[in-house]
Amino acid sequence: MPSTSGRVVKMEVRIELKPGVLDAEAESVEKSLSLLGLATVPKVGTARIYDLEFRGVSATEAKRLSQEAIDRLLANPVIHRVTLRPAPT
Amino acid sequence: MPSTSGRVVKMEVRIELKPGVLDAEAESVEKSLSLLGLATVPKVGTARIYDLEFRGVSATEAKRLSQEAIDRLLANPVIHRVTLRPAPT
Repeated sequence: MPSTSGRVVKMEVRIELKPGVLDAEAESVEKSLSLLGLATVPKVGTARIYDLEFRGVSATEAKRLSQEAIDRLLANPVIHRVTLRPAPT
Repeated sequence: MPSTSGRVVKMEVRIELKPGVLDAEAESVEKSLSLLGLATVPKVGTARIYDLEFRGVSATEAKRLSQEAIDRLLANPVIHRVTLRPAPT
């Protein structure tokens, strides 16, 4: 059985608001860019990223622990859409 | 000259705190995961994502406008590290 003691596994949790849920920060950014006179104002969306760096656990266990962190702390399933993936290198 | 009127260009702005700047939210998440009894508590980092969707501009212009939005509104160069890239599809 391979040792996992020194190994680092990085997972990325991306949390967005579900479509239909008001993204107040995004609206505020659009309004501000418009007031600043930006030549073309983009449609804005926001997301929160949590980078989770596990040490000494397998990739499978890191994924399970990340999902537990999402379910118990990071996300609200009523309003949030969550994407969990290995962190891009 | 090709028309850009219907074209959509998506840029992704990722804003993190520079190394050495206290990430209070990340620390709070680590502490909460520990209090919740997560078997292995990861090192946590956070980032804010702004997805900018431009319509009717070229990729070059979208990049320039995104940089202007970063400089004038989204980021504070004293504390933030910013990554600007075309949004992954």
